Amino acid sequence: MDTDDIIGEVLTKIRPTEEERAFVESLMMELKAIAEETIESLGLDVKPYFVGSLAKDTYLAGDHDVDLFLAFSPDIPLEELREKGLELGKAISEKLDSYEIAYAEHPYVRARYRGVKVDLVPCYDVKSWRDVRTAVDRSILHNRWVLENLGDRNDEVRLLKRFLKGINAYGSEIYIRGFSGYLAEILVIKYGSFLDVLKNADFMLRQKIIDPGNWLKREYELAMKTVRREAEADRPLIVIDPVDPRRNVAANLGWERYGFFYFKAHQFLETPSREFFFPENRKSGSYLGELRRKGTHLVTLAFDAPNLVEDVLLPQLERTARGFEKALPREGFSVLGWNVGHSGNKAFIMLEVDRRERERVMIKPGPEFFTERGWDFYRKNERVWIRGKRLFAEKRVKEDIAEVIVELIEKNQVAMGKNVREAIRSAEILLDYVPKELGDEAYLFLSREKWNLKG
Amino acid sequence: MDTDDIIGEVLTKIRPTEEERAFVESLMMELKAIAEETIESLGLDVKPYFVGSLAKDTYLAGDHDVDLFLAFSPDIPLEELREKGLELGKAISEKLDSYEIAYAEHPYVRARYRGVKVDLVPCYDVKSWRDVRTAVDRSILHNRWVLENLGDRNDEVRLLKRFLKGINAYGSEIYIRGFSGYLAEILVIKYGSFLDVLKNADFMLRQKIIDPGNWLKREYELAMKTVRREAEADRPLIVIDPVDPRRNVAANLGWERYGFFYFKAHQFLETPSREFFFPENRKSGSYLGELRRKGTHLVTLAFDAPNLVEDVLLPQLERTARGFEKALPREGFSVLGWNVGHSGNKAFIMLEVDRRERERVMIKPGPEFFTERGWDFYRKNERVWIRGKRLFAEKRVKEDIAEVIVELIEKNQVAMGKNVREAIRSAEILLDYVPKELGDEAYLFLSREKWNLKG
Repeated sequence: MDTDDIIGEVLTKIRPTEEERAFVESLMMELKAIAEETIESLGLDVKPYFVGSLAKDTYLAGDHDVDLFLAFSPDIPLEELREKGLELGKAISEKLDSYEIAYAEHPYVRARYRGVKVDLVPCYDVKSWRDVRTAVDRSILHNRWVLENLGDRNDEVRLLKRFLKGINAYGSEIYIRGFSGYLAEILVIKYGSFLDVLKNADFMLRQKIIDPGNWLKREYELAMKTVRREAEADRPLIVIDPVDPRRNVAANLGWERYGFFYFKAHQFLETPSREFFFPENRKSGSYLGELRRKGTHLVTLAFDAPNLVEDVLLPQLERTARGFEKALPREGFSVLGWNVGHSGNKAFIMLEVDRRERERVMIKPGPEFFTERGWDFYRKNERVWIRGKRLFAEKRVKEDIAEVIVELIEKNQVAMGKNVREAIRSAEILLDYVPKELGDEAYLFLSREKWNLKG
Repeated sequence: MDTDDIIGEVLTKIRPTEEERAFVESLMMELKAIAEETIESLGLDVKPYFVGSLAKDTYLAGDHDVDLFLAFSPDIPLEELREKGLELGKAISEKLDSYEIAYAEHPYVRARYRGVKVDLVPCYDVKSWRDVRTAVDRSILHNRWVLENLGDRNDEVRLLKRFLKGINAYGSEIYIRGFSGYLAEILVIKYGSFLDVLKNADFMLRQKIIDPGNWLKREYELAMKTVRREAEADRPLIVIDPVDPRRNVAANLGWERYGFFYFKAHQFLETPSREFFFPENRKSGSYLGELRRKGTHLVTLAFDAPNLVEDVLLPQLERTARGFEKALPREGFSVLGWNVGHSGNKAFIMLEVDRRERERVMIKPGPEFFTERGWDFYRKNERVWIRGKRLFAEKRVKEDIAEVIVELIEKNQVAMGKNVREAIRSAEILLDYVPKELGDEAYLFLSREKWNLKG
C-alpha cells in the first residue's frame, strides 16, 4: 500500500462523519445557549468561548471533549474572577448532567453533558498577550490564530495528531513531555501538510527556532530573551508562540519524545504503514523469561500511591527511581534501568539490577596509618592491613538487595520525591516477582519494548 | 615475662656462640690467605676486604654468608675491572668447594666453602663518595663507618634485625621494600639501642630526615638535593647516607613495611613477647572455608615462571595483578585484593573477586540520536531507546569471569609486566580452586592473615 492509500484509509477513521459533526454542532449550540442564559440570569458581564480542538475543528473522530471558556472583563480583580467564575460554572452545570470541581491554577468545573466531558474554565477576555493574567487566558488567542491561519488543512492536523498518539509522543503534560495539539497545529501551518512535517523532523531540530508570528522582527528584544532562555534550558525546539513572544510553545517537549518522533517519521517515510497511527498492542511476553534471557534481576517497590495528581506523582516517582539508580551502585549493585508508574491507587518503582546478592565481605579503606584516626581504625577492626600509606580492613555487609534497599531508605541515603517518601518507607519490596496486574508492565520494561524505537 | 627477660632469652638464640665466632674467624682468615695468595700469583694490584654483617660483627647466629670484596685501584678502566675481577674470583673459587657466576650490576662469583656461601665481588677501592664508580663501591665505606660508630652495640643491631625479620619487614630488595641491615645499624647508632629504635618508630616518621653524617652542615646543597628528591618521591624516611650525601639509605623502604614496623613496635612495647622475634607459623586454614565465609571468589592464574631473578619477576607479577585490578571493574567485577608469588618454577597471580558470573546483558550507551553516528548506532542494534539525547541499546556479553579474563588478555586490555606477558597468555585460569601446594598461600591471602597487622 502506498502512502496516499494509507493516509486515505487513516483519514476515514479519524475524520468525524457528517453525523458526528452534526452532533458536535448541536451540542455546542445547546451549551452556548445554556451558558448565555445563565450569564444573563446572574447578571454577569461574561462571554462564553469555545476553545480547543472542537472549536478549531481539529478533533479526532470520537474524541470530543468540550472546552468552554467563560471570559470575564480584564477590569475585575483576580479574586472576583475566581469566585464568580466558579459560581457561574456551577450554575451552568446545574443544567447539565453532572459535575465536579477540578483544580489547576484556579478551580474550575468539570461537567458531563450528553456523554461528553465539558470543562467550564473562567478566564480573562484578553485581546493581546500584553493583557494575559492567568495561564489559560492565551487559549482564546491560540484559537483565533489557528482559525485564521489553518485554512482547510484540518485533516493534516488530524493525521499528525493521530500519528503522534500512535507513536506515543502526544501530550504536553509534564510526565509525558510530548507534542501538544497546538504545537501540532503550528507545525502543519508552518510546513504545509502532515507529510511535510515528517519530512522536516531533522531540519526543524537543526534550525531549532520556529517563529510563525514573526516576533523576531516585531518584538526583537522580547523574542530573543525567550530564545536565549529556552536555548539555555536545552530544549529540542523553540517555537515562539505566535500570540505571545515570551513563550516557547514546545517548552514541555522532551528529547526522548522528540527522538521518538524523529525516528518514527523517518521510518514512516521509508516504509509507510497504518501501524504508526494505530499500533497493535505491543507484543506481550513473560517477564520471567526476560529475566532468564538477560540474566538480570527485577526489584519492584510497590506501595499505596499518595493522593496526588499525575503531574505531581509521576515526576516524584521518577526522581525517586533516579535516587535508587545513584545509591545502589555505591552499594555494589548496578542498575540497568528503571520504570515507574501507577495502576489504580498502587504505585510502583521497578529497578532492573545486575544481581540479587552481593559479597558478604567488603574491603573498607581506612585513613593513613600514622594518624590518630589511623589508630582508631586499627583498634576498631579485627583484621587490618596496609596498602601504600592507608589502612584497610574487612567489613561485613548485608547481602540481599532487599535488605540493602531497606537500609538505604532507613538511613535516608536515597534522594526521593518529597511527597512519596513516606509511602516508600512502607513499600513492599518484591524480588524477581510482580503481582499479576503488573506482569505486562514488567515485561515491557525488561524487554525495553516500552521504549524500543524499533518496536 | 618482662622486656629484659625476653630480650635476654632472644639474645641467647641470636648471639653467636664462642664456638661459632671461632669458626667464622678461622673461615675469614683462610679466605683472606687464599685471596691474597691468588692475587699475588696473578700479579694483580687488588686488596681483599670483608664487608657485610660478618665483617661488622652484626650477624645473627647461624647466618654467616661471607662478602669478600676485591678492591681494584680506581685508576683502571671499568671494562678491565669487570674482566679481571671475574677472572680473579674464579681463580680464588677454584680453591674453594664450588662456585657459579651470578649477575648484578656486573658479574661476580658466588662460591661455597666449608658450608658457607661466599660472594666474591669486584669493586673499586675508594676512599670517599666522590670516587664511587659502581654501586658496590660504597660497601667498604659503609663497613668502615659502622665499625667506627657502633661501639659495643652489636647485640642491639642483632635484636633489631631479628625483630624486623620476625615481623617480615627485613630486606631492602625491591620486592620486599623493608629495612636493610645497614639501615638497622644506622638506627641503632642514632637512637642508642634496640628498644630506643622501637620507641622512636612514630617520632622518626614525623621527623622524616635522619642525617648521622651531618651532611646538612657539611654539604648543604648536595644533601638538600637528596632531601628534596626523596621527599618528592614520598618516602617514609630520608636517611642521608653517612658516607654519601647523594643517597637515601631508606630509599627502598616502603610504606607498607614501615607501617608493619610502626604497629609492631607499638605492640611490642605494650605487650612484649618473644613471638615478635620468632613468630610461630601463621595459623593455616581452609581457603575454601574462607571463600564461603566471605562469599567471594578466587581466580588464580597459574603459569610457568619466566626465567628471571626475583627482583625482576615479582615486580612484574605485581604490575600484572594491578593491571587486572584495573581492568576487571570496567567489566563489572570488583577485585577485593590480589596476591602474587612463585613456588619453584610456577608463578601465580591470585585475584579475589566479588562474583564468578556477571549479567549476560549490559546496557550500551550510544551517541546523541540526531547525529550520523546516532543513525549508525540505531541501525546496528536490535532494541534501541533514548534517554535524554542519547541512544542506548542492549549488548550481550560473556558471563564467566574466566572467559572475560581470556578476552581481556587477547584484546591486550590489561597492563602487564612485559616479561610475563607471554607466560600469562598461556596461563591456566583456576576458579575457586588452587593446586594443593598453593592451598596455604590462598588461605593466608583470602583471610588477609598474610598482611594482618594484628596477626
